[in-house]
Amino acid sequence: LPGQMAAISHSTGTSSRVVRFGRHALVDQATNARLALCEKTVKGRFDGIVPTLKEISALQHEPDFPARAQAVALQQLGHELPAEILEKAWVSGLDLKALFVYSKFQALKLSAVQFSEDLKRQAESAQDAQNFFLDCGFHAVDISACSDGRLKGLMRYILRLPVTSLTRRTAYAGTLFDVESDVQHWVATELSRFREGVPSTSDSGTRYLKVAVYHTSSSQPCKQGCAAHGSNEHQALEAALERLYQFRQAIENAFCCGASTDLLLIGVDTDTDAIKVHVPDAKGDLSAYRFVDNAQVYADTLDLSADRARLAVYDAVRQASQASGWGVGQGEPHEGMRRLITNLLINNLSQIEYVGELYGGRYPDIGHAERYVIVGDGIEEVQMRNISYYAHLNTVEEGAADLDVGIKIFKGLNVSRGLPIPVAIHYRYDLRVPGSRDRAVAKAQRVQSAIMARYPELCATGMLACHLSVQDLPLGSPVENVEGDC
Amino acid sequence: LPGQMAAISHSTGTSSRVVRFGRHALVDQATNARLALCEKTVKGRFDGIVPTLKEISALQHEPDFPARAQAVALQQLGHELPAEILEKAWVSGLDLKALFVYSKFQALKLSAVQFSEDLKRQAESAQDAQNFFLDCGFHAVDISACSDGRLKGLMRYILRLPVTSLTRRTAYAGTLFDVESDVQHWVATELSRFREGVPSTSDSGTRYLKVAVYHTSSSQPCKQGCAAHGSNEHQALEAALERLYQFRQAIENAFCCGASTDLLLIGVDTDTDAIKVHVPDAKGDLSAYRFVDNAQVYADTLDLSADRARLAVYDAVRQASQASGWGVGQGEPHEGMRRLITNLLINNLSQIEYVGELYGGRYPDIGHAERYVIVGDGIEEVQMRNISYYAHLNTVEEGAADLDVGIKIFKGLNVSRGLPIPVAIHYRYDLRVPGSRDRAVAKAQRVQSAIMARYPELCATGMLACHLSVQDLPLGSPVENVEGDC
Ligand SMILES: [Zn+2]
Ligand SMILES: [Zn+2]
Ligand SMILES: [Zn+2]
Ligand SMILES: [Zn+2]
Repeated sequence: LPGQMAAISHSTGTSSRVVRFGRHALVDQATNARLALCEKTVKGRFDGIVPTLKEISALQHEPDFPARAQAVALQQLGHELPAEILEKAWVSGLDLKALFVYSKFQALKLSAVQFSEDLKRQAESAQDAQNFFLDCGFHAVDISACSDGRLKGLMRYILRLPVTSLTRRTAYAGTLFDVESDVQHWVATELSRFREGVPSTSDSGTRYLKVAVYHTSSSQPCKQGCAAHGSNEHQALEAALERLYQFRQAIENAFCCGASTDLLLIGVDTDTDAIKVHVPDAKGDLSAYRFVDNAQVYADTLDLSADRARLAVYDAVRQASQASGWGVGQGEPHEGMRRLITNLLINNLSQIEYVGELYGGRYPDIGHAERYVIVGDGIEEVQMRNISYYAHLNTVEEGAADLDVGIKIFKGLNVSRGLPIPVAIHYRYDLRVPGSRDRAVAKAQRVQSAIMARYPELCATGMLACHLSVQDLPLGSPVENVEGDC
Repeated sequence: LPGQMAAISHSTGTSSRVVRFGRHALVDQATNARLALCEKTVKGRFDGIVPTLKEISALQHEPDFPARAQAVALQQLGHELPAEILEKAWVSGLDLKALFVYSKFQALKLSAVQFSEDLKRQAESAQDAQNFFLDCGFHAVDISACSDGRLKGLMRYILRLPVTSLTRRTAYAGTLFDVESDVQHWVATELSRFREGVPSTSDSGTRYLKVAVYHTSSSQPCKQGCAAHGSNEHQALEAALERLYQFRQAIENAFCCGASTDLLLIGVDTDTDAIKVHVPDAKGDLSAYRFVDNAQVYADTLDLSADRARLAVYDAVRQASQASGWGVGQGEPHEGMRRLITNLLINNLSQIEYVGELYGGRYPDIGHAERYVIVGDGIEEVQMRNISYYAHLNTVEEGAADLDVGIKIFKGLNVSRGLPIPVAIHYRYDLRVPGSRDRAVAKAQRVQSAIMARYPELCATGMLACHLSVQDLPLGSPVENVEGDC
């Protein structure tokens, strides 16, 4: 629907404004079309499960039921169903919960394959992105967001960043990332620079960039914001900012001079996918009140030529640096940081228009609509809004708070409709480390046991089903199933 | 009892032999005397608890009971008891379990202070040890032993190694150490060499030494060996050896050339504290069948002068390298490794004589006699045989197997006598890392909750009591109590 006009009320603080969507000169139309097709295929695969199972359920007393059910499943879902479940339906009734869970994990597996193939086709743009980061002076981009499923498309959709060997993404409820584990990642990154000069030599002056991403909902800020912070945007922002400063301080205190890290804070409006980028000052410090609001940038630059629009974005970053009052900072960030921010804003313009064209500027599912829960390392390849609730955890003991939030969401989404909660437990191993795969499998099994112990009623009644898988470290490696279901 | 003859049967494989103890020229008599005093004081502090509480219990219906009880406690245990427990004894009976647990943790705290002061006095010998390691070509000595309490004196007594900034010690049931976490430690060590040239510069050719320590019992090998391996010495040895190779392979595979590590395997006879050191060959490979048996070395060198004894030890190492048959290797290890092994053997001669003099060559408590369980990071300062059962864990979920072994041991030691199990939960924080202390406290509290959830009956009946503490990273930092008991 090119050139469409959508009138939506977009609240920024107390005011609301009408946003117009069109064909912004900086928007990547080809990628938008490709992403729309991908979203349609992947979500269609998940969302076709219930209607298909309803259709199959209606057939269960027909002659030749197993064969007919398989034909319907194959045609509509793209895979067959477990024969033994279909064959015993005549005597014990059709186990629809089991079929539901099976189909969810099949859909997940097919999506992972699709995303991995996509990734291989994007090897070139990943290389470009890597070079761009290095050009901007960053040898690592470590992004922590909230576990909330509405941020699951952060890299691929919202920020349009291809997965590269320089980027790392983790998710924790409320963006409360693990400082100790991030410091370990920093240490490993630095060692690789010293030992191997990869991705930049230790004397090249490049920096480690740590990014934290919080979120809010512009239409229902007090209800559909970050659950971990009671939908209080300010609290979500301050918590993320505090962790960023803790991370920087930890590195500065524990290592000698030259251990410089850069920080960046980004807010996402999960209704529209528009971002706010908080612009660091010349000292690298951030402020809740110094940012570029990209929804505003989109509106202000919609009618400009590509060149003038690009300049306007750059200017918006410069103007933010000159904020006075609460947002006052000490000068502009370094040139590489300015270029990076400008680039992120321009990338996000495509996503703003994507949501504008496909959904009239505001997602119909402004709340939770995740398709499954995933715990562990996450399948980094699968990136899409509301596709899953992702809790990064090594043990349920440490990740209980994150997991509880996910289970609560799915009690509303699934259990209330009589459908089980599909929980994918996924760990990556490193084939180069002897015994690593075995230990990853054992870890997945341990986490499964801990989940069963934490939610005994859900498991006993078949309302929570786990699926275990492991995957080798390199991106796009096949997802390998592990035996054992709860 | 210098010059005493002790006839004990010492089984090595199928034969047994009579061992003579005397005054070996290489034994450090002064240190032996100091360690004996330390052992007496510390163990006395723990072992005086039950008799003292019995005495206090007998007084509970006397007039002026609280004051009399405090006087007895102060005199015999060196600390007072909680007044409120004594004062309500007349109405609800004396809560001896609570007093027992309180006294245990007081004894632990006083011991930690004593060990820390001792450490400060040994700063010089720590510096000597550090220089010796570097001279031998090692910039890190990372030792993993079994959690078994009989190895809790490994560094200070059995190997006579002062705690230095180069040494690291962890403990896991069955010596099944965590390869991933050790690789992280290797990475951090390497980075410090590259960035700061500490403790050696990256081009100095020094190596990271990983040591694994298994154990057996010469008098009851099938009963008092390593519980995690069903008291099968061979299995304990092979498991430790497998982890060592996994560690080396992990580093070699994941990092470029020059990532060289050295391996060492040591067996301890927990009856006598005599060690077997498995001698690496020129390629760094180990064999179950190529080792120096230090009990034999002690016997063979007892009558030699210091110089000749030293030469004999060096020769024993050389001879081991020339083993044929099952133990055949490819040449001798490098000179630094030979010096290190010789030194460890000589150090251990003092401990063999220590056990000879004090206990006639064989501990009276050849089995478990731990005084408390400690989980978490362990109080590295407190090093003494059978003082505690130590399980290194970050979560009960991961460390459940190690913890279960400890609880099982203490069901036999304490619960069977009506006494509760004292569990110290201890974590170290890094004052240089913002929020680190708060997170360590939260971690201790999380682990306490998990322990309560895992052993609900023991906790509900007061038969398991936790004590939480944290400590800053530098050795000798004070142990800080955390509120909250289970
Ligand atoms: Zn959130
Ligand atoms: Zn606000
Ligand atoms: Zn053991
Ligand atoms: Zn054997």
